[in-house]
Amino acid sequence: MKQSKLFGKTTKEIPKDETSKNAQYLIRGGFVDKSMAGVYTYLPLGKRVLTKIENIIREEMDAIGGQEILMPALMKKEDWQTTGRWDIDVMMKVKTFFDKEYGLGWTHEEVVTPLAKKYARSYKDFPFSLYQIQTKFRSEKRAKSGILRGREFSMKDLYSFHTNEEDLDKFYDQSKNAYFKIFDRVGIKEKTYLTFASGGDFSKYSHEFQTLTSAGEDLIYICDKCHIAVNQEIIEDLENSCPECGNKKLKEEKAIETGNIFKLKTRFTEAFGFKFLDKNGKENIPLMGCYGMGPSRLMGTVVELSNDEGGIIWPKEIAPYQVHLICLGDDEVVIKEAEKIYESLQKEKIEVLYDDRNESAGVKFKDSDLIGIPLRIVISKRTMENNSVEIKERLSSDTEFTSLDGLVGFVKDRI
Amino acid sequence: MKQSKLFGKTTKEIPKDETSKNAQYLIRGGFVDKSMAGVYTYLPLGKRVLTKIENIIREEMDAIGGQEILMPALMKKEDWQTTGRWDIDVMMKVKTFFDKEYGLGWTHEEVVTPLAKKYARSYKDFPFSLYQIQTKFRSEKRAKSGILRGREFSMKDLYSFHTNEEDLDKFYDQSKNAYFKIFDRVGIKEKTYLTFASGGDFSKYSHEFQTLTSAGEDLIYICDKCHIAVNQEIIEDLENSCPECGNKKLKEEKAIETGNIFKLKTRFTEAFGFKFLDKNGKENIPLMGCYGMGPSRLMGTVVELSNDEGGIIWPKEIAPYQVHLICLGDDEVVIKEAEKIYESLQKEKIEVLYDDRNESAGVKFKDSDLIGIPLRIVISKRTMENNSVEIKERLSSDTEFTSLDGLVGFVKDRI
Repeated sequence: MKQSKLFGKTTKEIPKDETSKNAQYLIRGGFVDKSMAGVYTYLPLGKRVLTKIENIIREEMDAIGGQEILMPALMKKEDWQTTGRWDIDVMMKVKTFFDKEYGLGWTHEEVVTPLAKKYARSYKDFPFSLYQIQTKFRSEKRAKSGILRGREFSMKDLYSFHTNEEDLDKFYDQSKNAYFKIFDRVGIKEKTYLTFASGGDFSKYSHEFQTLTSAGEDLIYICDKCHIAVNQEIIEDLENSCPECGNKKLKEEKAIETGNIFKLKTRFTEAFGFKFLDKNGKENIPLMGCYGMGPSRLMGTVVELSNDEGGIIWPKEIAPYQVHLICLGDDEVVIKEAEKIYESLQKEKIEVLYDDRNESAGVKFKDSDLIGIPLRIVISKRTMENNSVEIKERLSSDTEFTSLDGLVGFVKDRI
Repeated sequence: MKQSKLFGKTTKEIPKDETSKNAQYLIRGGFVDKSMAGVYTYLPLGKRVLTKIENIIREEMDAIGGQEILMPALMKKEDWQTTGRWDIDVMMKVKTFFDKEYGLGWTHEEVVTPLAKKYARSYKDFPFSLYQIQTKFRSEKRAKSGILRGREFSMKDLYSFHTNEEDLDKFYDQSKNAYFKIFDRVGIKEKTYLTFASGGDFSKYSHEFQTLTSAGEDLIYICDKCHIAVNQEIIEDLENSCPECGNKKLKEEKAIETGNIFKLKTRFTEAFGFKFLDKNGKENIPLMGCYGMGPSRLMGTVVELSNDEGGIIWPKEIAPYQVHLICLGDDEVVIKEAEKIYESLQKEKIEVLYDDRNESAGVKFKDSDLIGIPLRIVISKRTMENNSVEIKERLSSDTEFTSLDGLVGFVKDRI
């Protein structure tokens, strides 16, 4: 992509109406635009990052046998009434001009349970798990955390269905591993803790995934030995000790919930009268689990964790482009060489943002830091005197040089 | 994908509450599930088709310089009031528990225009075009056409911005070509007509893309010579003649609108006070075009056009899988060979639905016809006696045989 054509401008100014770091960085870098409180447009750079995160999640859900579907946002009032959730605060209610009323989905048990009931009747149809990556709506009274907590946001929600507890437990554990693979790939694994939470009426514990950040709204209590944590709901019950090793020196930290998994058991299958025939021809109620993770929240969390005074530092797998190619000066020979590099990198399927603008070196470097692409290549009259380009990684303050001839190979090793 | 694990079942029964052919076929084939009137869930097979169509559209929009963004569905009441569209019938209105009111987007001029205004100030920032593939909501009183006309549906909407008419005209023509490339790739080009429609206050004509089908709600008048058409609004003004060649023998046909492009000119830029500085430092109002196309409607249209009494016949590029591998009987040697084929096709990145179910040949063939994958491979004890498999294309009634050894190469040539 030529930067001169890229829609969305970087800005030095910190947006006045944004108190959260993620929104400030993302707006300044030209990733998102605030449409209104808690509602953002993803600009071309931001959409690329969001799509990459969604695809990582998709791959890891597919890997544990999740089947992707797409459920509607418009949901039947009667189905919400069946589960007693129609009048919950977070629900946005929709009215049509012909006076039909719907709920806008903030979760999808009320769609997926009746759906599964239609198709799964025998024990032979189990287990299965369905997921979607879809837009959710929540009536948040205050929406001040940028894309960490929006009124409209991207969500992956997976629902699993089982004939017995062992099978539910097995899948529940697989999903834990899948979640850590995702956290690893988006670059926040080290700061993310499997966190014990209340299991509600059904289980001893449920689990959240909490990522340490000063932007977090939650307090968690971490055990350094086990790399796990306990949330505020249950810390007292546990007498401030680690549920794994009994360690009493838990450390209080601020964190944000970046995922949650929950054994719903028969809460929804029972409500919708969902039954299956077991091996002996007897009717039984299936067990359910639900597994949530918000791609837009992950994106915001990465920004909160991975930045410096210059801007965002994107982890490799989710950077909007793999390489930022910067051409300095207006020397035609240099420009011609820059275009050649741009073409040859693209030919190798390397994603390049090419700063071809007529701007000073200072402006270009500042913008490059704001945008935060991991690998920067600079070509100028000076570097061309040695038939080379300058390389700088966003994470490092060192620069190095590599020859024009070997550039493509060099880049392939680094991305 | 192993069919024994696939969520969503085929059914012989024609759903009683569906009068449209597309919904009947899609439900019977396990592609979609009706959640309520005009609102569908895309099951795994259907989601794959929808995603493929969306990706084709994405590629063709990128090819003409469109930049992908993602705008919110929740839209400001005030912005709709600015353009005088808040009280239009199709609008769904959202209310939160804290009494905030939003409109749910059925089109996005009210977001994209203020957005473009923020970032494009100088003639140097033009031209540019932004698009999204996003969920739209429409308060349709009657929703009886399956996924052809839903209350919630997938839409590609692109908006282009220009400093002068020539530039708008140029992009408008490029978008026409891009649309026909898409119709070609999804297999409905031959039946799709560039259709002259009223230009509103701004242009002599606007253009729709109308695809001939008995399921269509529109009447168009086609000129066989020019392969163009005229819609009902303007046929009288044109005195029943072709606007290109003057031909008076236009043929009335039923059709569905599968795309539309429109020169909005200054309708929205003016409403939002969007101005740019031209080369002479003078303020000017940018010109806009909008270009719509619904992936879910395209999917429904393909089903309306491409089917037989057995089920859907998917065009190659948008079939849920490229190959349907069917194993007959319960002979272990045959099953082992089928698994081997399944693995080796997948290793070559060929998408395979593998019918490994314990069902009769009759059931498997009927389901295969319903699902409509273009290429069918059958392995059985009988075919294995000759070290071969049976091949049948969905479109053809002929079968042929190919050796097990040469199968992967054979398939690659056919998909």
